[in-house]
Amino acid sequence: MPTQDHMKAALQAYIDGFAAGDAAAVSALFADDAEIEDPVGHAPVQGRAAIDEFYKNAIDIGTKLLLDGPIRGSHGARAAMAFTVDVPAMNMRIRAIDVMTFNDDGEIIKMEAFWGPDDIES
Amino acid sequence: MPTQDHMKAALQAYIDGFAAGDAAAVSALFADDAEIEDPVGHAPVQGRAAIDEFYKNAIDIGTKLLLDGPIRGSHGARAAMAFTVDVPAMNMRIRAIDVMTFNDDGEIIKMEAFWGPDDIES
Repeated sequence: MPTQDHMKAALQAYIDGFAAGDAAAVSALFADDAEIEDPVGHAPVQGRAAIDEFYKNAIDIGTKLLLDGPIRGSHGARAAMAFTVDVPAMNMRIRAIDVMTFNDDGEIIKMEAFWGPDDIES
Repeated sequence: MPTQDHMKAALQAYIDGFAAGDAAAVSALFADDAEIEDPVGHAPVQGRAAIDEFYKNAIDIGTKLLLDGPIRGSHGARAAMAFTVDVPAMNMRIRAIDVMTFNDDGEIIKMEAFWGPDDIES
């Protein structure tokens, strides 16, 4: 099981990758067979090619993430964080909470993004 | 599926129930066969009697919850919130994120609390 420090560093690297405009760095945090459910309730994106494309698209339009508070761990292989998504290209802000589940290699195997229609400000 | 408004009101009622010291109000948000995984990674508490006892114990010692930001919905039957748990009896604060999953009757059927050993301040 990954350590708390490992998981929290990965979530911070996720935020930092958006800040740096580095989609490859964000995508590299995920396992090749990872699943991204963003938002929760929609069909997930799955697999390396789809994940690479997902983050390339998000980061190409200048999306930035601002943490609402400290990243949380757990007593298992999961961690979570609350943040605000700023999408200047769409003049849009989304209030989101992401939950990340890790595999034994310390890679993110599942990402679940909690935000609903009412969590978008424009 | 419950509406976004229903889920967000339930999560707010959860916070408010702690503020009011009303364990019965908090417990009543849950289905009789609900499961509480608090913290994530520990064996869950399950069923009406165990849930009643869980919240009675937490609220009897004066635990209060302070939201870190707005409650988030999703595009499914799940919602999430980030908050700080204040346990004055133990001189302890815990940074947590809770994810709640609802059943078709609008009751919480699963609660997952994300906080790890490093998310406790004392």
